[in-house]
Amino acid sequence: MSTATQIAVDLATVSPVAGTKPPAYPLASRQSRAGASTVQVGSIEFGGPEVVVMAGPCTVESRRQLLEAAQGVCSLGAVVLRGGAFKPRTSPYDFRGLAEEGLRHLAEARTLTGLLVITEVMSEKDVELVANYADILQIGSRSMSAFRLLEEVARTGKPVMLKRGFMATVKEWLLAAEYILAQGNERVILCERGIRSFDSDFTRNTLDLNAVAVAKMETHLPVIVDPSHGTGRADLVAPLAKAAIAVGADGLLIEVHPDPSTALCDGKQSLDLPRFAALMSELRPFIAATGRRLAMPRG
Amino acid sequence: MSTATQIAVDLATVSPVAGTKPPAYPLASRQSRAGASTVQVGSIEFGGPEVVVMAGPCTVESRRQLLEAAQGVCSLGAVVLRGGAFKPRTSPYDFRGLAEEGLRHLAEARTLTGLLVITEVMSEKDVELVANYADILQIGSRSMSAFRLLEEVARTGKPVMLKRGFMATVKEWLLAAEYILAQGNERVILCERGIRSFDSDFTRNTLDLNAVAVAKMETHLPVIVDPSHGTGRADLVAPLAKAAIAVGADGLLIEVHPDPSTALCDGKQSLDLPRFAALMSELRPFIAATGRRLAMPRG
Amino acid sequence: MSTATQIAVDLATVSPVAGTKPPAYPLASRQSRAGASTVQVGSIEFGGPEVVVMAGPCTVESRRQLLEAAQGVCSLGAVVLRGGAFKPRTSPYDFRGLAEEGLRHLAEARTLTGLLVITEVMSEKDVELVANYADILQIGSRSMSAFRLLEEVARTGKPVMLKRGFMATVKEWLLAAEYILAQGNERVILCERGIRSFDSDFTRNTLDLNAVAVAKMETHLPVIVDPSHGTGRADLVAPLAKAAIAVGADGLLIEVHPDPSTALCDGKQSLDLPRFAALMSELRPFIAATGRRLAMPRG
Amino acid sequence: MSTATQIAVDLATVSPVAGTKPPAYPLASRQSRAGASTVQVGSIEFGGPEVVVMAGPCTVESRRQLLEAAQGVCSLGAVVLRGGAFKPRTSPYDFRGLAEEGLRHLAEARTLTGLLVITEVMSEKDVELVANYADILQIGSRSMSAFRLLEEVARTGKPVMLKRGFMATVKEWLLAAEYILAQGNERVILCERGIRSFDSDFTRNTLDLNAVAVAKMETHLPVIVDPSHGTGRADLVAPLAKAAIAVGADGLLIEVHPDPSTALCDGKQSLDLPRFAALMSELRPFIAATGRRLAMPRG
Repeated sequence: MSTATQIAVDLATVSPVAGTKPPAYPLASRQSRAGASTVQVGSIEFGGPEVVVMAGPCTVESRRQLLEAAQGVCSLGAVVLRGGAFKPRTSPYDFRGLAEEGLRHLAEARTLTGLLVITEVMSEKDVELVANYADILQIGSRSMSAFRLLEEVARTGKPVMLKRGFMATVKEWLLAAEYILAQGNERVILCERGIRSFDSDFTRNTLDLNAVAVAKMETHLPVIVDPSHGTGRADLVAPLAKAAIAVGADGLLIEVHPDPSTALCDGKQSLDLPRFAALMSELRPFIAATGRRLAMPRG
Repeated sequence: MSTATQIAVDLATVSPVAGTKPPAYPLASRQSRAGASTVQVGSIEFGGPEVVVMAGPCTVESRRQLLEAAQGVCSLGAVVLRGGAFKPRTSPYDFRGLAEEGLRHLAEARTLTGLLVITEVMSEKDVELVANYADILQIGSRSMSAFRLLEEVARTGKPVMLKRGFMATVKEWLLAAEYILAQGNERVILCERGIRSFDSDFTRNTLDLNAVAVAKMETHLPVIVDPSHGTGRADLVAPLAKAAIAVGADGLLIEVHPDPSTALCDGKQSLDLPRFAALMSELRPFIAATGRRLAMPRG
Repeated sequence: MSTATQIAVDLATVSPVAGTKPPAYPLASRQSRAGASTVQVGSIEFGGPEVVVMAGPCTVESRRQLLEAAQGVCSLGAVVLRGGAFKPRTSPYDFRGLAEEGLRHLAEARTLTGLLVITEVMSEKDVELVANYADILQIGSRSMSAFRLLEEVARTGKPVMLKRGFMATVKEWLLAAEYILAQGNERVILCERGIRSFDSDFTRNTLDLNAVAVAKMETHLPVIVDPSHGTGRADLVAPLAKAAIAVGADGLLIEVHPDPSTALCDGKQSLDLPRFAALMSELRPFIAATGRRLAMPRG
Repeated sequence: MSTATQIAVDLATVSPVAGTKPPAYPLASRQSRAGASTVQVGSIEFGGPEVVVMAGPCTVESRRQLLEAAQGVCSLGAVVLRGGAFKPRTSPYDFRGLAEEGLRHLAEARTLTGLLVITEVMSEKDVELVANYADILQIGSRSMSAFRLLEEVARTGKPVMLKRGFMATVKEWLLAAEYILAQGNERVILCERGIRSFDSDFTRNTLDLNAVAVAKMETHLPVIVDPSHGTGRADLVAPLAKAAIAVGADGLLIEVHPDPSTALCDGKQSLDLPRFAALMSELRPFIAATGRRLAMPRG
């Protein structure tokens, strides 16, 4: 059976600042919580003093490819492994991922490396399956306004990383987060990944760091930046990753592939392992400049 | 169990024009079909010599409101009743529709008036339910890239009206149609409903009639225009509806509410019945100028 | 010597509707004038019961090309000849027009055909020169916010056609018109020519017919539509020209070239004479549907 | 007399990389020059190892206001004073600057403080006048495509700071720089100041740091960032200024007003002197992280 449930939030339980009108997103708003909230996943804390680097391939293509990527990024300082098992593709004829087989490879990589696993869920019907494997459920940019999916994902109780829709305003993004929070799941991490603008001669998207600074002021939630999608070019990942750290991001999501030239998806924006090593090294002084430190691999 | 099925389209079965490269959307493309395709729903044909007017409230609010709207638009020349039972809302705290109760009201209105019924499905879990009631399943603008939903909807075999995402390119829109066609469901109707631009001082969206002309040239599918969402203002519906007819649209989707001032959703863009009557009257010479005629109520 | 003059508009001389706040553009606003204003140029009236068609090449390339175009469009029902003598070009290495020689060709074409002449002025230093030749001065899309140029042009007393900047809001467009009106020049004609959006796969710009309907409601000024720039494609000019008429435009600006394949600029969006003939024929029933008639060549 | 001069660039004098097609902007391109070019103005070098901070009020409002701002920003580490004497305003009824009186105040501030002066020129007729007072001529965002103005300004031989049009592509921006370079003026400084996007709920513009990284790769010219216009909010200037440094900008342009609450223009985005002091302090570790140093006041 199907219902379109209404949510009754007791607005008296959120404590608005005197004299201001209640925000459109009472649970996501800074007005409801004095400091920043942190999201704990395993031994890793998002939104605290540590900057979290998540890395891995756009798509899980094979066991070998994933394990090679996982071991590489782990040894270089990433603490979360990304990799898509279910891929939203503009064309129905493109490769859409390995599905459950991809999830199993992610789980194996976690066991081998100790990395946490983040992966996208794009269908309400896959939520339970993906939740069985992933440490963090990712809502992709195209799904940000799939409100029923947001609620299903929220109800798993798992941490959720909510990518901003490439055509969504910051207000819409925070209201999408509110959909998850309103289900009682407080472990929401925001992720800026670039917006669509009028200019795509040189970059695939326009990374919107204004939005990161705004989100940090408007909400208490951690905010991550994905410079790989945000630029669409491997050679722009490093400068924009540094800028993301400088603007106050709580972490980065970086596409890394053992051999980008053979990638089934988004190879042009993927770093190979030597370039990822260089990036991690270049980031250090900028992280230090913010007064933070890099989250370290656990164990 | 869950799988991410790949589609094998036999590209040899589509007949490309000699010397041109195959289109990204072989099934949707004009290259695969010489003339326009028509979509028959009951006694109504989309994409043929008749212009189809679909009208009704944004949201089914009550039995009384819907029946009053249905009888009104039917008597004034609409042949399809629109009305949302499941509403995608930017905020989790807004009214989200009557769900199955709304669908029952739509079915009753159909019985009473003979109108066909179109309504949105926004969740994979509602597809079967909505398909039990609706004559045409609507994919809303925010769901255009919900590819798994597109496939579920396609597999019902019901006609599908695919709204363009408000920040989707025409190419992405046609590829989304391709997702439906690739499931073997040929009854796809496109609907332009306005894009997001940099200017929202006066209108909610920017109705993109270039896209309608392009879609008519690129594909063989019928194309409908929604000037209500496309402008967001009741006083702009008539001029843009005329322009839509002139540019070659195969039909219109118009929001009509018996009392727009009390509407729970989108009242500012809804026509009341006298204004809808005036619109239908004003449209006639423009429909005639195209050499077409208005689709008439059946029976 | 140079000064940045401030304008003192006696706001008491405009008669706002009681109870509404004064508009940002008191002279352009409908609140300052009950009906539509018309702009008379020679025997042609813009904004009245007649629809005005202006046509001609993007750029004056040679005496022969221009005279051939002029005679062609005149015989087919255009009443104003367009043609650029000074062309704003994105690259400094592109052809920028014949300058005064081009103006002389335009004047000769006027003498031979009786057509009025419209041409762009893009530099404050050319205003006097261009005003010596043209019947209507055109402010191009890139110059809409060149406020000092607007004032110089206004002070010639000549009619001014103000193209909307491709990145300007409707409000900014009307405020640019206000710059001209505030100099005491009431003969302002607005022209919508397409905006820049996120989608340029199929069309060069997005023709914004919402803006035409809004401008007709907000101001008393005539509004023209340029579907040639608005689409960038010759095969889309006819459907969008019809839509422009249907939405209420007071005229059209159409690029016509005797041989588009050899055009130095914008050939892809130019009609040849047979296609322009077909367009004029196709427009007639749509003009009739609006209750208006085509402005006829004078004399 | 007026002519539309064509430019003959000897493409043989630029040395393209073997096997690549010549760039659209041969003089601006990195293909024409191996390293970065620097622009020397007085004792200050743009594009070298030092990061240049330019600061001052949006508009020169009075002698007192300007001198107070100048002495303040000078004592805090700025080396160039900004301040508008000619202001492009969307409405003809807004304050447009003190014109030559404003220029005299700027010159006096230079004498008193040793700061260099940058100010905007928006009319071809003012170029000579402004060049008599300014050390650097600024082309504003709305004038980026005023190609005749670009050429007039170039011919003064003065350094030119070219702001990116708020809806110009990076390619168009570099081609506008090419207009200046093609006149033989090599002292061109680029400035990113935010683009217009679909989201203006929280910020006035969207600062495009992708474009800064791209411009640094595509051209050899120095690139400055204006986070004041780029965000439109004083509280966002610091995080975005840090991000601009991190992404590789060669300097910053910051609006500083002794009392932003009384500013005639753009007060909401202006820092007062204590906030500017804090910004300068916060920037230091980020400048150090890039391996660069802050340009110091001369003398």
